[in-house]
Amino acid sequence: MQTDLSRKLGIEHAIFGFTPFPAVAAAISRAGGFGVLGAVRYTAPDELARDLDWMQEHVDDRPYGLDVVMPAKKVEGVSEADVEAMIPEGHRQFVKDTLGKYGVPELAEGEASGWRITGWMEQVARNQLDVAFDYPIKLLANALGSPPADVIKRAHDHDVLVAALAGSARHAGKHAEAGIDIVVAQGYEAGGHTGEIASMVLTPEAVEAVAPLPVLAAGGIGSGEQIAAAFALGAQGVWLGSLWLTTTEADLHSRALTEKLLAAGSGDTVRSRALTGKPARQLRTEWTDAWDDPAGPGTLPMPLQGLLVAEAVSRIQKHEVQALLGTPVGQIVGRMNSERSVQAVFDELTRGFERAIDRVNRVAGRG
Amino acid sequence: MQTDLSRKLGIEHAIFGFTPFPAVAAAISRAGGFGVLGAVRYTAPDELARDLDWMQEHVDDRPYGLDVVMPAKKVEGVSEADVEAMIPEGHRQFVKDTLGKYGVPELAEGEASGWRITGWMEQVARNQLDVAFDYPIKLLANALGSPPADVIKRAHDHDVLVAALAGSARHAGKHAEAGIDIVVAQGYEAGGHTGEIASMVLTPEAVEAVAPLPVLAAGGIGSGEQIAAAFALGAQGVWLGSLWLTTTEADLHSRALTEKLLAAGSGDTVRSRALTGKPARQLRTEWTDAWDDPAGPGTLPMPLQGLLVAEAVSRIQKHEVQALLGTPVGQIVGRMNSERSVQAVFDELTRGFERAIDRVNRVAGRG
Repeated sequence: MQTDLSRKLGIEHAIFGFTPFPAVAAAISRAGGFGVLGAVRYTAPDELARDLDWMQEHVDDRPYGLDVVMPAKKVEGVSEADVEAMIPEGHRQFVKDTLGKYGVPELAEGEASGWRITGWMEQVARNQLDVAFDYPIKLLANALGSPPADVIKRAHDHDVLVAALAGSARHAGKHAEAGIDIVVAQGYEAGGHTGEIASMVLTPEAVEAVAPLPVLAAGGIGSGEQIAAAFALGAQGVWLGSLWLTTTEADLHSRALTEKLLAAGSGDTVRSRALTGKPARQLRTEWTDAWDDPAGPGTLPMPLQGLLVAEAVSRIQKHEVQALLGTPVGQIVGRMNSERSVQAVFDELTRGFERAIDRVNRVAGRG
Repeated sequence: MQTDLSRKLGIEHAIFGFTPFPAVAAAISRAGGFGVLGAVRYTAPDELARDLDWMQEHVDDRPYGLDVVMPAKKVEGVSEADVEAMIPEGHRQFVKDTLGKYGVPELAEGEASGWRITGWMEQVARNQLDVAFDYPIKLLANALGSPPADVIKRAHDHDVLVAALAGSARHAGKHAEAGIDIVVAQGYEAGGHTGEIASMVLTPEAVEAVAPLPVLAAGGIGSGEQIAAAFALGAQGVWLGSLWLTTTEADLHSRALTEKLLAAGSGDTVRSRALTGKPARQLRTEWTDAWDDPAGPGTLPMPLQGLLVAEAVSRIQKHEVQALLGTPVGQIVGRMNSERSVQAVFDELTRGFERAIDRVNRVAGRG
């Protein structure tokens, strides 16, 4: 699977794999794709440095990248404590009541909340970048709008391509104006933050909006057939996130969550503001139902919601409370029905891709 | 664009075009596709007969089909008046108030409500079938579940293939068990009644669920690139509805509505219960906003909502009340930016398809 972009990056398959797990990211790069490590959970720069050291040793000199979550709008002089103070007491009580209703135990004393939202704050993301540019990363992706101009410049000075996620053609066009290099068009069916335009419609709209910049199609892609469809729609690559969650290299820290993912169908996700305050696709659970219930207090805007639920989500995950246990994941969760190595996933993707190419050629009378 | 199904039907391109307009349906068949006339608006059998007579004279002996809306569940001995009586007075008042707020004039005396919902009632659909089977239709599609077993048998006795729309793989599987011949997998991005699974995910799931039965991909398809994507996903054909609304052969009876469609972007639709009581994608208007507003009375279940709003929708359309004027349409409305003949649309679809095939072959190294 070769495009201008894959040739530029020196990868075998134009498959970009986003994952919070260094072992998965490295395996994606080794398999001939492009591993992109999600940095949002690293609050301490030395933790990120440790994992990038590990990546460096395990990618067999293949290229890889980093995904940060840098807000488009700069908020000056606002601390986490300031933001915490903006959370209404009624919402804190709702969290407490909901956890109580399901008997969710506390974290052990001194146990850190594993789910951290502070990576969303610009200074945290900037600290991550200070670390990242010491490594030979080839791509910097931002999940929240275009990065600030100085960050784009700094990336380009380091020969690092900049990618940004977009949920609409208009959004994609703004990224292009900001000077980024690659647009990741994130369709409605994608896991995590996503808009309302489905990939089938969004991908060609984004391609048209930013040409000649390359577009990666994201959302609804978990098979070689879907990859072939994305290329037909004009993408120069595909961006897969959900699919890796059930690979053997992934470390969800919860057997119950892995089992939930393996059992879920494509109709078992919901686009909810429960996790961050912005609509993000995730497993539908009694936790998301509680937040989406019109009879409840509703969610708070980003970043308040993320701060509000951070500890609660950690407690639910840590104690594997079945009814509430969830994770961001896209509609392709319906085909994540077995645990396999990243390499086995790649083998199946490339086989499915070739089958799909055979099929469209037969339809076109070029068989 | 040839598949086993297109060969079986003797058509040049595996493109199925659903439309309420006989002139459009006939033009689709003449252009080498398969025109499917939507029958829901025909309450009088002789009107349907008149339009099928016209079709017969204008299809140049090409095959065509009919789409009915036959409820899966049979309701015995319930008249339209019985159903009307179930509508709460508060909802009637809300319709009156909303129309009043926008100064929507009454229909002229004796002027029939153009938007009719009665085609949804089984007896009306059965009367339509009595007419339709006198014509050499080759396909009978049902937009609401599988048709009753006796209707499927009757179709098969007439050598008519039966298709049914499905919004999930499970739904598709039920159709297959009922003995239908073709599943139309209707993705989230489609116009009209639709579920929450996007075409990129739904198409391959439906294909897998009903193989070896053929699946037509519906939703998000308005270009040759999207058609190629659908074939990559395993579809044996595509089912397009929205795209024809801005063809020169279409007769929307409202210049203002045509202009609205030409101007709308992919983000200007909403999946709302406002029109029928079931979620249906349509242009977002102040009318849909009023029904979707949590502060309002909300919508009634099918078929109550359709009966409740039938006259109001006719008044809005007749008097072209800009803020309220809408129509069912999918997210591809964003690329419906010019008025062209059905033949010109086909020419562009086939050119775009060939370009997409070239592109995927280059990616696959088969260029």
